[in-house]
Amino acid sequence: MKKCIGIDLGGTTVKLGLFCEDGTLVEKWEIPTRTEENGKYILPDIADSIKEKLETAGISGEEVLGAGIGVPGPMLPDGYVETCVNLGWRDINPEKELSELLGFPVYGGNDANVAALGEFWQGGGSGYENVVAVTLGTGVGSGIILNGKILTGSNGMGGELGHLPVNRDEAELCNCGGRGCVEMYASATGLVRLAKRHLAVSEELSVLRVSGNFTAKDVLDAAKAGDELAEIVVDEAMNYLAVGLTMLTYTVDPEVYVIGGGVSKAGEYLLDKLRVHYDRYIKLSAKRAKICLATLGNDAGLYGAAKLVLNHQ
Amino acid sequence: MKKCIGIDLGGTTVKLGLFCEDGTLVEKWEIPTRTEENGKYILPDIADSIKEKLETAGISGEEVLGAGIGVPGPMLPDGYVETCVNLGWRDINPEKELSELLGFPVYGGNDANVAALGEFWQGGGSGYENVVAVTLGTGVGSGIILNGKILTGSNGMGGELGHLPVNRDEAELCNCGGRGCVEMYASATGLVRLAKRHLAVSEELSVLRVSGNFTAKDVLDAAKAGDELAEIVVDEAMNYLAVGLTMLTYTVDPEVYVIGGGVSKAGEYLLDKLRVHYDRYIKLSAKRAKICLATLGNDAGLYGAAKLVLNHQ
Repeated sequence: MKKCIGIDLGGTTVKLGLFCEDGTLVEKWEIPTRTEENGKYILPDIADSIKEKLETAGISGEEVLGAGIGVPGPMLPDGYVETCVNLGWRDINPEKELSELLGFPVYGGNDANVAALGEFWQGGGSGYENVVAVTLGTGVGSGIILNGKILTGSNGMGGELGHLPVNRDEAELCNCGGRGCVEMYASATGLVRLAKRHLAVSEELSVLRVSGNFTAKDVLDAAKAGDELAEIVVDEAMNYLAVGLTMLTYTVDPEVYVIGGGVSKAGEYLLDKLRVHYDRYIKLSAKRAKICLATLGNDAGLYGAAKLVLNHQ
Repeated sequence: MKKCIGIDLGGTTVKLGLFCEDGTLVEKWEIPTRTEENGKYILPDIADSIKEKLETAGISGEEVLGAGIGVPGPMLPDGYVETCVNLGWRDINPEKELSELLGFPVYGGNDANVAALGEFWQGGGSGYENVVAVTLGTGVGSGIILNGKILTGSNGMGGELGHLPVNRDEAELCNCGGRGCVEMYASATGLVRLAKRHLAVSEELSVLRVSGNFTAKDVLDAAKAGDELAEIVVDEAMNYLAVGLTMLTYTVDPEVYVIGGGVSKAGEYLLDKLRVHYDRYIKLSAKRAKICLATLGNDAGLYGAAKLVLNHQ
């Protein structure tokens, strides 16, 4: 059976996976991401690591259909990356350069979109054709899969759920320069920010007040344990996320939302709060997208990168 | 050259067009929409009219590639229409039924989506692959064209720009039951409503105050003539529309927005106001969709219906 390679390129680590074309992950490994000198070593390091792995496994280049790579930034349809802040990259075409180093085709995409393709293929969106995968991590990312393909968008802004403006009354600015973006509430950072804001303006008892220095997980755990202030915070975050999902339903109208990332570890407790608000906003039809949990965790990007290759066969 | 038929089915009139496969509109005509008895005469009337026209023109059924039809309501990918309030229809498959009456294939779609396909093909979106066409009429409709195909959505809610919630502080409810939908501001009805609201809470001089009973065109004309209250109203409406377009940019990220419908007759004056707000909201990239005027007017639906047929060849 032919093989393909999945590459999930992050700011500190590169995750790599060797796949069979039926989707079986044969082996996965990691190498560090060397961002020095504008990230000039990153692609050669990846190429060397893949060649070494193929040699050890006795796999020839002819047996490899290609490699897929998810990069942490916007990529245009022709593979061009204008800038990738976390890697130091500027004006680079990683598809083309890595393909020249490896001697077989390379297909790339934005990492959130590629992870969405993974969840669509082998994860929480498996069995559907139209999937939006949402990652609630440090920020809020999302990827839109329509008819089994990534919606990239004309200017690399497709599926930017995290920066949909959902609260024009917000006093603070988002990192993007916008106001009231989904990411300011429904991310790990957002949950902590919201909790601190509520603590500052109320005198309510809360376990969060005791520690002072808490994480998003602490907020979610406190809410689950019945801490009223924490519950209000989580509910508010899920309300804003629901507005964002409403926007996605009234634009791309997927069959399912697959929710992943660190914050989603709060599980069905979190989704139940999200569903209450989502159902409240969707007025046009009783039929609407389901909301479920992602299942591939940190491997979603690897699977999606491999699927990028298979989508081109 | 082969022919195809475009049908734009409205609540009072059916517009029909005979096209060459190169997109030339050979002839167009209209028949009334008979909505009595749950609209049971509509499809037979359409079939009779088309057969008569083909006979008169000496065109045989073999020369016809098919007919396309835009219907005023949601249509599922298999052609099924659950309900079409304006026509009295319920549980009907117009593609299947009309095809049986005509003896050649029929392809259907929601009228806003089909009109968008028309503007993409022969109108303001010509030359682009990814287009969102917006109709500012009694309501606000929109259709999303990605890679030259209509984005229908999984539950018929794709491209419902009119019902994106953009102002949660809105006191009134939209017809859909939602709150602060784009349609409540940027439609003809919305402009009049906003103007009346402003007149009620201010004492400012305005030509609109004199008549009391005014139309959206009056509001737009007054704004163009420098009436300050009317200008504030139009600016507010375009602000909310810009929020809606921002949502579309951060989800489907088209190359161009094509703005049509009665309100758009205010032309570049209106678009300039829209662009100012749109540019203010899009923070993620300097590259973003252009905003331009629709060019096909009331014929957009006819052209789009014909293109539905050609997309299936």
